[in-house]
Amino acid sequence: MSPDDLECVGALFTDLCVDSEVARIKGLPDPLQFYRSFVSPNRPVIIEGACASWPALRRWTNEYLKTLDMLITVAITPDGWTDAIRGGKFCLPYETQMSFANFIEAMEKPRSDEVLYIQKQNSNLEDEFSSLWNDITPDLRDWGSQVFGANPDASNFWMGDHRAITSMHKDHYENLYAVVRGYKTFTLCPPHSILRIPHRLCKNFMHRRHNNNDGILSSGTSYSCSGSNETSQKSQWTLEETQGETLWVDGRPGEWPGVQCLKTVLKMGDVLYLPSLWFHQVQQSHQSIAINFWFDMKYDQRYCYFKMGELLNTTTAPYTRQHLSKAGLH
Amino acid sequence: MSPDDLECVGALFTDLCVDSEVARIKGLPDPLQFYRSFVSPNRPVIIEGACASWPALRRWTNEYLKTLDMLITVAITPDGWTDAIRGGKFCLPYETQMSFANFIEAMEKPRSDEVLYIQKQNSNLEDEFSSLWNDITPDLRDWGSQVFGANPDASNFWMGDHRAITSMHKDHYENLYAVVRGYKTFTLCPPHSILRIPHRLCKNFMHRRHNNNDGILSSGTSYSCSGSNETSQKSQWTLEETQGETLWVDGRPGEWPGVQCLKTVLKMGDVLYLPSLWFHQVQQSHQSIAINFWFDMKYDQRYCYFKMGELLNTTTAPYTRQHLSKAGLH
Repeated sequence: MSPDDLECVGALFTDLCVDSEVARIKGLPDPLQFYRSFVSPNRPVIIEGACASWPALRRWTNEYLKTLDMLITVAITPDGWTDAIRGGKFCLPYETQMSFANFIEAMEKPRSDEVLYIQKQNSNLEDEFSSLWNDITPDLRDWGSQVFGANPDASNFWMGDHRAITSMHKDHYENLYAVVRGYKTFTLCPPHSILRIPHRLCKNFMHRRHNNNDGILSSGTSYSCSGSNETSQKSQWTLEETQGETLWVDGRPGEWPGVQCLKTVLKMGDVLYLPSLWFHQVQQSHQSIAINFWFDMKYDQRYCYFKMGELLNTTTAPYTRQHLSKAGLH
Repeated sequence: MSPDDLECVGALFTDLCVDSEVARIKGLPDPLQFYRSFVSPNRPVIIEGACASWPALRRWTNEYLKTLDMLITVAITPDGWTDAIRGGKFCLPYETQMSFANFIEAMEKPRSDEVLYIQKQNSNLEDEFSSLWNDITPDLRDWGSQVFGANPDASNFWMGDHRAITSMHKDHYENLYAVVRGYKTFTLCPPHSILRIPHRLCKNFMHRRHNNNDGILSSGTSYSCSGSNETSQKSQWTLEETQGETLWVDGRPGEWPGVQCLKTVLKMGDVLYLPSLWFHQVQQSHQSIAINFWFDMKYDQRYCYFKMGELLNTTTAPYTRQHLSKAGLH
């Protein structure tokens, strides 16, 4: 595809199917109308106030959350970048377990040498955070199940430091993302950006934390902030090579010529419908809490065209060929 | 796009979003379920018996139709190919008006030197054929309006000779196509075939009929078959250049390597949902009658990706570039 044609395709997409800013509607609409207006055309929208009536919005104060007796999984990084390319390495966070009360305390007294983020993504809301389940009225989840014709594949709980950033990536899910506390800033790029966004295959590395006093805290070790003192307990970090390699977006929004980005802020009580295969980077306010439901996407024409886009992008083509070849399609 | 990648993309589409034969369901399903299963994934389906209860199926005998006092528009060709490339020329049919009774008589006694077809496509069911409107219960049309969120853009009446063929083409419409009499044979190629199906820009020509006895019958002249006798009134045909040129599919199904075609027969009482941008060629049984509703398509990602496909096809690329340039997109 020539640079001229690429520009032309980009302009057509921009003209026809990318809003100049993320669309906004109020309240959950009729499922068919929503499917026709947003899911089928793969168009993101903020549904204002769609989770505003959840008891969670009033109930989930730090005071209340600290009373819950829960052991939870936390991702920790030295710099806040969870799942991201840093210096040519794909860096996975250090993962550990701690009590929820300790996590909240760490949120209240953030340390400069580590950034904590709850981002387990394995339906942790139904697992580690199941005691919070009843604070969420089933309206959004039920409505989503009606829209997508099936229950969600995963229900996740997210809470973290304002420094925690999930770098630009895409998911193979239709996403209903609800902000319960604070706000979230999404930077979105439409799926056809695959024609332009460079990717890079990097070896996987994992952050590993060493503490001056208590040595290496291996994954699974209970973590306590009580009595922590930055000067006496300064974390030291190393990166350790781990299994496998990851093909990931190379660079950051704003660095890619011709790629259109939409930046939007999602406030408490609002829900973002983030369609499948949209690239997104997520930042947040301090101590923000979000809930999201992932519904299976349809592997239809759009997915095939996306793969076609990958084959037209020189940085992704070899890996897509390899992937399709493994599936017996090349 | 390399031949290898093209093959790979084709295999992926075939694997994920083209059924080995056109899917079949019974009766009109819930609109949301239908949208999710067929409209959004752009997947054709035969809805068996969806128009079986229409009074038209019992009432529209030749005897009854001949009693209707209607002046109608008929396309006539020497060979049955209406809108098709013949010998490097894009051939439009000769168009004339006649009474419906005369048309039915011509159907009953087909002449070898001309093929008649009612195919006006300008919502003729609400115009020239409005007196047939009440024989169609509003169920399918209303259901379609619910599914697509708007009334149809056009409601058409089709009736013709078994020799009449609409050559392979695509429409920018979502199509609900109901067979009221006889049967129709559809040959379908999925939209991604645009990567492979050759197109050709041809000057427009129009068939023009000269009769031995009554000379040239110009468009608008009333046509009568009564007392016609093939030996004495043999039609003679010429092709006359007319305004403009048309970019059209070059060749026929089966002639294009790597293009997957689905052939399906639509019986009386059945409705085909033919999604937008699917290529289709249509043949029929003698004296078959069909009704179709065209609903506006969504100009979303799929449309843009289709245009991208056109830019990747060397036979369509120059015209797509021109078209997009006129729209200020190049």
